[in-house]
Amino acid sequence: MNSLIDTLESTIRTIPDYPKPGIAFRDITTLLGDARAFRRAVDELVQPWAGSKIDKVAGIEARGFILGGAVAHQLSAGFVPIRKKGKLPYDTVRIAYSLEYGLDEMEIHKDAIRPQEKVILVDDLIATGGSADAAIRLMHQIGADVVAAVFVIDLPDLGGAAKLEKLGVPVRTLVSFAGD
Amino acid sequence: MNSLIDTLESTIRTIPDYPKPGIAFRDITTLLGDARAFRRAVDELVQPWAGSKIDKVAGIEARGFILGGAVAHQLSAGFVPIRKKGKLPYDTVRIAYSLEYGLDEMEIHKDAIRPQEKVILVDDLIATGGSADAAIRLMHQIGADVVAAVFVIDLPDLGGAAKLEKLGVPVRTLVSFAGD
Repeated sequence: MNSLIDTLESTIRTIPDYPKPGIAFRDITTLLGDARAFRRAVDELVQPWAGSKIDKVAGIEARGFILGGAVAHQLSAGFVPIRKKGKLPYDTVRIAYSLEYGLDEMEIHKDAIRPQEKVILVDDLIATGGSADAAIRLMHQIGADVVAAVFVIDLPDLGGAAKLEKLGVPVRTLVSFAGD
Repeated sequence: MNSLIDTLESTIRTIPDYPKPGIAFRDITTLLGDARAFRRAVDELVQPWAGSKIDKVAGIEARGFILGGAVAHQLSAGFVPIRKKGKLPYDTVRIAYSLEYGLDEMEIHKDAIRPQEKVILVDDLIATGGSADAAIRLMHQIGADVVAAVFVIDLPDLGGAAKLEKLGVPVRTLVSFAGD
């Protein structure tokens, strides 16, 4: 195993039976709070695009804002928030997506990304990929060129990365928890 | 006037009568989306602490996560989220604070900051200072040394900065909108 990945994995806290019995919750706050792990995660997430021109980094509310802000800073890109409905103050485009129970909606400002601008989507974790899939479709609606979607944690058994690749968006993840 | 501040101010969008008539909403998403303005804001927020040892940067959910993530990256510090109640998965400390109508509560993980660690609090905007005041008290409860609270936007007529200085925490802001 790669020692970088070992180190990152060891900084993620697992909370058993949260939020309900039988679920092992992967808590990224311990990674974020570890200065070296946080910096390594950011560096490693965007390593393939170091030196490329990336116009915007998009983050999904709320945990995706933390890594997204840092990744945008690292790449000298702008940051674009993708938020739950009703949180953005200007004209938005909205999309519905499925949750475990029922539907929810997310929004982006209509003018947040110009057509053809290159964007990287960032979130902390990919599970089923429902919110990331919706976020990419939303960005496609306003003409963005989504060049990649990056996540610190992958739960590969839930198939999220495969779902995003069907949209033609390459996926990069750093730490994989199979069996979750 | 300082040309840096002029530039940052010009990237903030003002939305009249939002969220209700008579309110001029200061929309920071246009600053965040402008790569140069975002980088300048981050650099300028922490300029007094460049080269100092800062252990952690704390951000208030949700917009404070964006700038907080970037500031933590810039300072090579860890990041600590301060969240609305019920959002953090591990043992927390909680505090109530006043909103315009009624009360709300925010939380921090008990082990997010070790006693005496040096922390900078980051948020996008300071108005009455209610949430920042609560965030600082919460961090003091777990022994943090809060060395500063930094905000891109100040609405000085609402008295937030003065409130935080009563807690002994220096406040730094970049763009001031008097009359709001």
